[in-house]
Amino acid sequence: MEMPLPDPAVLAQKPRLVERLLQVLPPEAVIHDEMETRAYECDALTAYRCPPLVAVLPSSTAEVAAVLKICHDMGVPVVPRGSGTSLAGGALPTADSVILGVARMNDVLETDYENRVIRVQTGRTNLSVTGAVEEEDFFYAPDPSSQLACAIAGNIGMNSGGAHCLKYGVTTNNLMGVTMVLMDGTVVELGGAHLDPGGLDLLGVICGSEGQLGVVTEATLRILHKPEGARPVLMGFDSNEVAGECVSDIIRAGVLPVAIEFMDRPVIRATEAFAGAGYPDCEALLIVEVEGSEAEIAEQLGLILEIARRHNPVELRESTSAEESARIWLGRKSAFGAMGQINDYMCLDGTIPVSQLPYVLRRIGEMSQQYGLGVGNVFHAGDGNMHPLILFDANKPGDLELCEAFGADVLKLCVEVGGCLTGEHGVGIEKRDLMVDQFAPDDLDIQMAVKDVFDPQWLLNPAKVFPLAASLGRRAG
Amino acid sequence: MEMPLPDPAVLAQKPRLVERLLQVLPPEAVIHDEMETRAYECDALTAYRCPPLVAVLPSSTAEVAAVLKICHDMGVPVVPRGSGTSLAGGALPTADSVILGVARMNDVLETDYENRVIRVQTGRTNLSVTGAVEEEDFFYAPDPSSQLACAIAGNIGMNSGGAHCLKYGVTTNNLMGVTMVLMDGTVVELGGAHLDPGGLDLLGVICGSEGQLGVVTEATLRILHKPEGARPVLMGFDSNEVAGECVSDIIRAGVLPVAIEFMDRPVIRATEAFAGAGYPDCEALLIVEVEGSEAEIAEQLGLILEIARRHNPVELRESTSAEESARIWLGRKSAFGAMGQINDYMCLDGTIPVSQLPYVLRRIGEMSQQYGLGVGNVFHAGDGNMHPLILFDANKPGDLELCEAFGADVLKLCVEVGGCLTGEHGVGIEKRDLMVDQFAPDDLDIQMAVKDVFDPQWLLNPAKVFPLAASLGRRAG
Repeated sequence: MEMPLPDPAVLAQKPRLVERLLQVLPPEAVIHDEMETRAYECDALTAYRCPPLVAVLPSSTAEVAAVLKICHDMGVPVVPRGSGTSLAGGALPTADSVILGVARMNDVLETDYENRVIRVQTGRTNLSVTGAVEEEDFFYAPDPSSQLACAIAGNIGMNSGGAHCLKYGVTTNNLMGVTMVLMDGTVVELGGAHLDPGGLDLLGVICGSEGQLGVVTEATLRILHKPEGARPVLMGFDSNEVAGECVSDIIRAGVLPVAIEFMDRPVIRATEAFAGAGYPDCEALLIVEVEGSEAEIAEQLGLILEIARRHNPVELRESTSAEESARIWLGRKSAFGAMGQINDYMCLDGTIPVSQLPYVLRRIGEMSQQYGLGVGNVFHAGDGNMHPLILFDANKPGDLELCEAFGADVLKLCVEVGGCLTGEHGVGIEKRDLMVDQFAPDDLDIQMAVKDVFDPQWLLNPAKVFPLAASLGRRAG
Repeated sequence: MEMPLPDPAVLAQKPRLVERLLQVLPPEAVIHDEMETRAYECDALTAYRCPPLVAVLPSSTAEVAAVLKICHDMGVPVVPRGSGTSLAGGALPTADSVILGVARMNDVLETDYENRVIRVQTGRTNLSVTGAVEEEDFFYAPDPSSQLACAIAGNIGMNSGGAHCLKYGVTTNNLMGVTMVLMDGTVVELGGAHLDPGGLDLLGVICGSEGQLGVVTEATLRILHKPEGARPVLMGFDSNEVAGECVSDIIRAGVLPVAIEFMDRPVIRATEAFAGAGYPDCEALLIVEVEGSEAEIAEQLGLILEIARRHNPVELRESTSAEESARIWLGRKSAFGAMGQINDYMCLDGTIPVSQLPYVLRRIGEMSQQYGLGVGNVFHAGDGNMHPLILFDANKPGDLELCEAFGADVLKLCVEVGGCLTGEHGVGIEKRDLMVDQFAPDDLDIQMAVKDVFDPQWLLNPAKVFPLAASLGRRAG
């Protein structure tokens, strides 16, 4: 993946930049030693690395505003960073940029159970938002796999989802307001603990904007009351197609499980060898989970099992205890780790109409043959959010490039069948050059014109989201 | 409400404009006779009227693009119009504008039950979207009171809600994609039948943008499976405060009814005299409705009734039949008509945190004394979306202005307690000058900068949403 050359004029300003940053931040919040900046050289897309010029760790909105104002004055690009768990290179620095990490901003600012909202600083981790309200039996719904580590800032940047977003929606459906600092240091408030206000609703365009428009420092989030109980059922089928049809039929029937997870044979085998969850040896597995009171669970599962039986499952295992439920989920939750034991992998993230699942799975299998690279599928089937894991050997010259080409073909296929390039990981650097496959030139132009409004000099999170040539051209003005 | 003077240069162009419009539309789709254009002189905010220069009724995206291109070339403002049911003056013309009505664009383009979406032309009425899918037991959730007449175009423009949006969300939560024509005639596609795509999610900013950014001609909407059943319960209380506390406690308990409707004594009395629904004579009534299977209904209602009993209701009537359910809803559905029998009224639309209901209701009562104008409250209490109806006499000089001042004070109060100026009716002309009470200058500036991107000459739906002085200044450039 090509990265732009650093701006030598910016590099030359480093001493003056550090001096100015130290005027607004305490010394421990300004990291400029070359060895220490290496800690910020990549996120979870580790194939790409580049240490930043400086990293800063402000602890308030006012400090963020002061940092951005300095960078804006000096023409220094800024890369906002949550916890660095992006799988799309969303927090990858350039050599001439300041990494702005929000990790020290993790306070709960307000908890309001009557209006079902919590307000937090955005460096707070996803899981610890739920942690702050679970004593009162509430929770925050979006649950990315990385929820123990990932920050709300990154969740908002990427519009993150998770296994349970089939029922509860992704971040945008659970975000009610933000405090955001623009590149010039202006602080704006968008949304709040109420329905959409009048005027243009900019909150929706902020959510998922991947740090292109500003740095979100505080967020008002919807919290929900915990359901009384939940129960998963494990279903095995002897083909991906049949499993895909079963998913379609469940959705079609109008019953809404909280999760429908899909695993194909390569993932089932790797997972079983790694975690020993007791999965059957079959072509495709579904985990379907429902929530509610005992009566609601029984009713929903009754309907779901009836649909599953029509597809001749080779296994149909309804959990009968908390231990069994944990065991059913154990395999799914170990799947990424298990695949990592086999080889390096690249985790894709495309979304398709649910009805296209059987076709797309078959085409991915054919491409796997063609490219000579193995692939495993483990994903949120209920909303068509696929995560093919392409296996490659990082030490074998050319393998990464082959893997990238395979990945690009899969994502183009997603767009072709009426889906899109990303479900919850964002575009980052990974998919920026595929944006032309998703969007017509007019569609992209208008997105970039909106970026112009918020960040006229294109200093925020450079060289991402938009095709590289376009964003470099825009930056040059 | 002050309206800008028409641009004489535009008025002088009328013959040439009509001639050019007739080149791209059939004669019956171009209304330019002065008597006939009167049909478009107002929407449901009938206190303000102004016939447009011309009205056009295109029947396809291509025709809309052709019309906009002509108006753009000639510098003629355009006011998009759905069915003209706006309560905020959203479709009020200026004397120098072309009204672009989408009423003839009402086809269903695609129905896809497997992916739970329908694609329609936006002139289609809200209720007839459900009509197109109910044979298969599906429905479209947002249900404005005007759903028999109002168009999807207007629903998208105003981000409309309805009684059932507590559970199902407002339009933005049920809108998946649009085809939109920009002022210069460019056609763009935003979103689709999948999760948010990468890049900037402009769909959220389009929804609720009140025709400021473009004309939405086609929409992909989420459809849902109809619940098995629904049952309302009627609750009477001897004070607004206690009814408000009961609403808070239901929300706080985490149970999610599909609707919690509130009526105060003036509305109860007017409604009872008008419709004879058998409501008790008390200070405040709630209608709480739950949905689901028999078991789910029983369980939710059990919890809700237990909460209600703790507030010593003077009435607690659970429906036992379809007839009784209809009777419970009859009063609520007749409330606006009933109030209209008493006097002219202005229907406000503000949103507040649910916990502030008792305080805000008390303050509205005090203001009513102060202004000497009666007021009735009937609204969606579950999400804090209030609709105070201020009674006035249109034939009494000064009464409308007094009513406007009272309304402005109520809306400022909503903002003060942490709410916002509008829940579902939009800003229109009605609330444009209150926007400065909701938004800081920086917040408004960035909204207007986004408008600049889509409509640099400020030709679309002029003199609305933003404070009049600001939008006139912007238009002048």
